[in-house]
Amino acid sequence: MLEKVDLTKKVSKEEYKAKMPQLEARLGRLQRECKSLGIPVLIVFEGFGAAGKGLQIGRLIQSMDPRGFEVHTIKNETEEERMHPFMWRFWTKTPARGRIAVFDGSWYRRVLIDRFEKRTKNKELPAVFHSINSFEEQLADDGNLVIKLFLDIDRKEQKKRFEKLEKNKETAWRVSQGDRERNARYDEYAAMMEDMLFQTDTDYAPWTIIESMDRRFATLKIYTTVIKAMADQIEKVQRQKEKKAAGRDEKAEDRQASEDGLIREIAKAADDEMRELQVSILSKADLTLSYTREEYKEKLDGLQKKIQKLHGELYRRRIPVVLGFEGWDAGGKGGAIKRLTEKMDARGYVVNPTASPNDIEKAHHYLWRFWRAMPKDGHVAIFDRTWYGRVMVERIEGFCTTEEWKRAYKEINDMEKDLYDAGAIVTKFWMHIDKDEQERRFKERQENPEKQWKITDEDWRNREKWDQYEDAVNEMLMRTSTDYAPWVVVEGNDKYYARVKVLQTVVDAIEERLKEK
Amino acid sequence: MLEKVDLTKKVSKEEYKAKMPQLEARLGRLQRECKSLGIPVLIVFEGFGAAGKGLQIGRLIQSMDPRGFEVHTIKNETEEERMHPFMWRFWTKTPARGRIAVFDGSWYRRVLIDRFEKRTKNKELPAVFHSINSFEEQLADDGNLVIKLFLDIDRKEQKKRFEKLEKNKETAWRVSQGDRERNARYDEYAAMMEDMLFQTDTDYAPWTIIESMDRRFATLKIYTTVIKAMADQIEKVQRQKEKKAAGRDEKAEDRQASEDGLIREIAKAADDEMRELQVSILSKADLTLSYTREEYKEKLDGLQKKIQKLHGELYRRRIPVVLGFEGWDAGGKGGAIKRLTEKMDARGYVVNPTASPNDIEKAHHYLWRFWRAMPKDGHVAIFDRTWYGRVMVERIEGFCTTEEWKRAYKEINDMEKDLYDAGAIVTKFWMHIDKDEQERRFKERQENPEKQWKITDEDWRNREKWDQYEDAVNEMLMRTSTDYAPWVVVEGNDKYYARVKVLQTVVDAIEERLKEK
Repeated sequence: MLEKVDLTKKVSKEEYKAKMPQLEARLGRLQRECKSLGIPVLIVFEGFGAAGKGLQIGRLIQSMDPRGFEVHTIKNETEEERMHPFMWRFWTKTPARGRIAVFDGSWYRRVLIDRFEKRTKNKELPAVFHSINSFEEQLADDGNLVIKLFLDIDRKEQKKRFEKLEKNKETAWRVSQGDRERNARYDEYAAMMEDMLFQTDTDYAPWTIIESMDRRFATLKIYTTVIKAMADQIEKVQRQKEKKAAGRDEKAEDRQASEDGLIREIAKAADDEMRELQVSILSKADLTLSYTREEYKEKLDGLQKKIQKLHGELYRRRIPVVLGFEGWDAGGKGGAIKRLTEKMDARGYVVNPTASPNDIEKAHHYLWRFWRAMPKDGHVAIFDRTWYGRVMVERIEGFCTTEEWKRAYKEINDMEKDLYDAGAIVTKFWMHIDKDEQERRFKERQENPEKQWKITDEDWRNREKWDQYEDAVNEMLMRTSTDYAPWVVVEGNDKYYARVKVLQTVVDAIEERLKEK
Repeated sequence: MLEKVDLTKKVSKEEYKAKMPQLEARLGRLQRECKSLGIPVLIVFEGFGAAGKGLQIGRLIQSMDPRGFEVHTIKNETEEERMHPFMWRFWTKTPARGRIAVFDGSWYRRVLIDRFEKRTKNKELPAVFHSINSFEEQLADDGNLVIKLFLDIDRKEQKKRFEKLEKNKETAWRVSQGDRERNARYDEYAAMMEDMLFQTDTDYAPWTIIESMDRRFATLKIYTTVIKAMADQIEKVQRQKEKKAAGRDEKAEDRQASEDGLIREIAKAADDEMRELQVSILSKADLTLSYTREEYKEKLDGLQKKIQKLHGELYRRRIPVVLGFEGWDAGGKGGAIKRLTEKMDARGYVVNPTASPNDIEKAHHYLWRFWRAMPKDGHVAIFDRTWYGRVMVERIEGFCTTEEWKRAYKEINDMEKDLYDAGAIVTKFWMHIDKDEQERRFKERQENPEKQWKITDEDWRNREKWDQYEDAVNEMLMRTSTDYAPWVVVEGNDKYYARVKVLQTVVDAIEERLKEK
């Protein structure tokens, strides 16, 4: 999940001042509602040292009624705690119904700092992750809202902050030897973070990454995340109550209905706010990148020859390859796949076009048809559109329920992990163009009799939902780009550039794997 | 789970012949209903070699419409299968909506035979279990019914069956070198089975142990298990449909209502049948066991001295101990706890009496109050009634939902595993008496002014639910007796015998642990 995080976004002082009062009022409002509905809330702050956990917690609780929450700072275990099972001190700190427990550090310590310092042994990790997930699932099943915030800063920024703290006599003590060590071995520690996120990003207790280079930005995103999560949970509990009341043939009270409206409004506002804060991975793509026709021809030729050779090597070494292509309509998937496979031995690859599921496919789990098409060892399977339809078109068109597409991130990560564990190279491409370029290509297709078949009314309809798709794509890239199956955003306004980048990425991935073995 | 299995139960030819026709008719009926509702069903047969998987599958499918099911025999991977990810061959065999897939062997092969033969490496196991659970959860979430049957026979019976097969030229080929090896190292293989059951006995895909020494008994239990699971799933789907219809303000059709009644009836009959088949762990207890007063005094004295010494040793070695006491009302919990602690240093143990939860406790997860009371290293925590209230009184009195108590087995196993992983000795006692003995003791309490406080109307009311409790206790003992936290059934009609057995068990458990370290 950390792979696609963009740490550059900032919020100005003016924007911050304009937005905060309303967010603070809303949070206060929601806290009271959680109290009256008896919803217990856990808010977990984790992340890199000096990312600002303490400061952000301070800002968050400013808007809360102090009689309704408690902050737990989790440091090294006390003598008493060390003499109990690890989860004991967290079980005993779980909030009562209607109360909020804020954790500055948490049970994740055991798979982060303790793991880094080898106090947690590698062989213990499976049991520890099992305990953590079991703990959170039990709380969620029991009606607790578990909000997990991961504060992210990069190595340089962390170093800068440590140095600033150290310079001041008043704050120097706050930087420990462990902090310095984790900064020195930042990548190693970040890999543990990534593993932790993979193992514990669940539908019952999902992680939200808080980009924390800019403190105002982080504060806004934390407030918005907490507000959204609370409003959703309140709505859920209200619906359950209404259903129960309906079951007893009672009428829901009027007050309830008006409350509903208010909470709904807050949830919707938080959605909009989140969209603004969402660091758009797509927006970072530099769409001016291009090649001249000559550059393109030369590069293409070289890469295709390489791929031809590597393809044979893959076959001999029995390494399977799974390549997924997604992207905007007219984003250039077809053209890239064509150049990729042009010089490959046709007996060694298959291109699977993915249309709407047929009746037999509909009679199975949505992943079934993709599992069937997975390549055998030494073969290459290319998917023109993929299983990610679940979290894009199916999500947006309502072909599946919210629960279903939310669950799908984990299901998909699990499938790709199975493929990786079986030795496969797995890479996914997002063919990215901007809205103007799409319009240009659509019109060109309409005007060119040879290409008219490629454009339908549906394409134009989808285009109207560009913003919705962009949100869904950004979330997808964030939640499903993993080190074992990364997403690659391909800057596609220039077709030459896009095709070369796809081929180059495939060549690099194969060469890297061949080196490993 | 295998620990408490009783393999001695038999069914006579007459009983078998009397019961089968109706079960067969019902299964056929339910298959048609699953088809019309579009419910996909997976039936997995696993267990020891020669336990009769093939034969039982043959008997099961006799009652099914052959157009609606498929049997998959899972042997060594073919060349084609070996060249795909492990789960590929199972994903591709998942049944379409409304169809039944029967697996003779399954994906569990990888954590059983393949593990035994070291084709699955130990370090791969966490990822493999993750894959298996993810696979089953995804199917269950998608509406599949996953029924898992584990056919259990003992080592001697297995050997006998192998020898019989080997004697006959026609069948000798069916016994492989691997079979013989697994029989020779039966205990080692059984431990892998137990680990598999712990890791994969989930609420979405639970295991049922089929005692398979007697083939007629096994057939009846398999039929009943499958019938019950199908009927429950059908009811669930029907309810969902009704809710949807109600949401659209449509009336459920009449046909639907009458179907409901029929399925309800079948489910209820299967419940009753299951109760008869349930191998009652409690009924195996020999309640005639007793000691004379002299024997008792002598043994008690010796054991108390030992415990006193061991208690000090536990303290020095910092080993925590958790002892849970459950049992029938008037079963002798108090007396046993008194004798156990009489000579122990009062600073090193605590007895926690468990009453109905108070308001603060009710405001938390049901395990919260027990977590709080867990002992620190070197201390002993004794619970007079325990967290098992969730699957007994709360289940029977409807203080929690069916979902909640079904989920609790795993939650409790997870908690006890956390304690064990933290170094604790965990043992649970069921103080067992028969109904007559309870009556005698109740009356004695009523008549003795000193003891009247010990007996309430509620005790008499609970007594009326003896059979319900017995079912719940049997299921609890089966699902939560683990090697890291075993249940001990204490034969309690004779108080002397019961007290000595409790003390002896505690002494043995501590001595064994001290030897390990």
